[in-house]
Amino acid sequence: MSSDDYAAALSAVAAEFDACLSQVLQQEPSDVPRLWEAMRYAAMAGGKRLRPFLVVTCAGVCGGDRAAALRVAAAIEIMHTYSLVHDDLPAMDNDDMRRGRPTLHRAFDEATAILAGDALLTLAFEVLSDPLTHADGQVRSDLVLGLALAGGPRGMAGGQMLDLEAETKPEAEQDAVIRLESMKTGALFAWSCEAGAVVSGADPQEREKLRAFGAEFGMAFQITDDILDEIGDAEEVGKAVGKDSDRGKATLVSLWGLEGARDAALEHARKAVENLDFFGEKADLLRASAAQLIDRRV
Amino acid sequence: MSSDDYAAALSAVAAEFDACLSQVLQQEPSDVPRLWEAMRYAAMAGGKRLRPFLVVTCAGVCGGDRAAALRVAAAIEIMHTYSLVHDDLPAMDNDDMRRGRPTLHRAFDEATAILAGDALLTLAFEVLSDPLTHADGQVRSDLVLGLALAGGPRGMAGGQMLDLEAETKPEAEQDAVIRLESMKTGALFAWSCEAGAVVSGADPQEREKLRAFGAEFGMAFQITDDILDEIGDAEEVGKAVGKDSDRGKATLVSLWGLEGARDAALEHARKAVENLDFFGEKADLLRASAAQLIDRRV
Repeated sequence: MSSDDYAAALSAVAAEFDACLSQVLQQEPSDVPRLWEAMRYAAMAGGKRLRPFLVVTCAGVCGGDRAAALRVAAAIEIMHTYSLVHDDLPAMDNDDMRRGRPTLHRAFDEATAILAGDALLTLAFEVLSDPLTHADGQVRSDLVLGLALAGGPRGMAGGQMLDLEAETKPEAEQDAVIRLESMKTGALFAWSCEAGAVVSGADPQEREKLRAFGAEFGMAFQITDDILDEIGDAEEVGKAVGKDSDRGKATLVSLWGLEGARDAALEHARKAVENLDFFGEKADLLRASAAQLIDRRV
Repeated sequence: MSSDDYAAALSAVAAEFDACLSQVLQQEPSDVPRLWEAMRYAAMAGGKRLRPFLVVTCAGVCGGDRAAALRVAAAIEIMHTYSLVHDDLPAMDNDDMRRGRPTLHRAFDEATAILAGDALLTLAFEVLSDPLTHADGQVRSDLVLGLALAGGPRGMAGGQMLDLEAETKPEAEQDAVIRLESMKTGALFAWSCEAGAVVSGADPQEREKLRAFGAEFGMAFQITDDILDEIGDAEEVGKAVGKDSDRGKATLVSLWGLEGARDAALEHARKAVENLDFFGEKADLLRASAAQLIDRRV
């Protein structure tokens, strides 16, 4: 599959996904307009929609229903969005720009950004537990548990805490950096792929293979993110760059150098793809997505 | 039932509940110690444990399993705790004291308080969707959906947003204030009671009666909270008082005066108890809890 074919598939899913997400974020007439407006501002800002792409594509590989996969993707992207909103806050990374626009607390205010993040996080679980997403309560409950584990103190929130602490630890060991990145970023990527399997009623082996693909994909993604933070162009990337080294934070780039980090990303992408052998040609789009990571510039 | 009997029952549930909550908040050895420490600091600070009491007592009325009810209570109290942590932040209410101790962001720091709140919120859904809580996935999914609706933009988070906006609206109409309070406080009380029924496999009528009891109980509670904010003693209440009038925020006390507010609380408590006729003597403890609200001093 050519990289153009992959890019076209990614855009097509993003467009379909945005329509689903917009519906999920539709405020009811009697509601709190400013809160929903803030939630939409953060969630409808575009972005590559890579996690939704993985959910929907993994569900497709398992023969699952696309509408259900899109709702699961919405919950995961909403969870990702809340984490960006809170990470950007003055007390956290204090970022002014995100996806080429003012961050939520700059466009609105800090209190609204805190609350909109909280509301998004809660909404993610509402979407998954709504019978609209899947008729089987056991499946819905599994989807909730997986997202909570990936997003909570054992996953993303825990990784974010380690990340805060890392600013005071420029001499961190490589194992600590890898653990931080696998919690902060890897867990939600792994769950995106696994959730696509879960909502499709996949068997345990398919589920495990896709989870392993997602975990390696996530590590490759995070390492390329660290590389972009080092060498990327702020305007192209859509957010501030060079932050990690400014803060004296250890990353895999500071530990291994640019070439070493590129090699590691390549190795994770290779391992990711190994897990797809089981699925044959059906997984070509996932293979292309892993290959594409290595060349990403945004 | 005497108020002493009620006080003894409330303390007994609180002690049993704290043991369950402490277990839920047990960090694993490999985890992120500072984050869990912050989560425990906020969650294990005591408090009346009124919502857990309602969950457990309503489950008892429906003949449900106590261990399951305690886990549901833990999820709801964790949700309540996160909301206090975020509400206390400098960008929100900027409170220094909570339950007689420094607020989380004063005891730790602001970033840790934001993250610990996020981690608590996510953990609440992990607890509910864990098969340890209930064997039936449909029940777990119902518990998740109810908590998400009560806590999210249609409930508590939405009410909190209205509360922020209320500071600029001292002339708010009574309907707007009632709506704010029913979203901010009433929704989680209503769900505490309903969840006790849901986890116990109660029939729809029992569920609806307990929900209605909880909604009225929550309104009575919030009005007595507004009264305490006006006349209470900061040391006894354990947090700053007089905040609403300092900020020029309309409350039911500012709209109706102290006597009018007391009458309204009494009326909500009376309506709450009406819903219990259906359950006969089994609901005496719930009746006592509603009666006690009117005399609360903390």
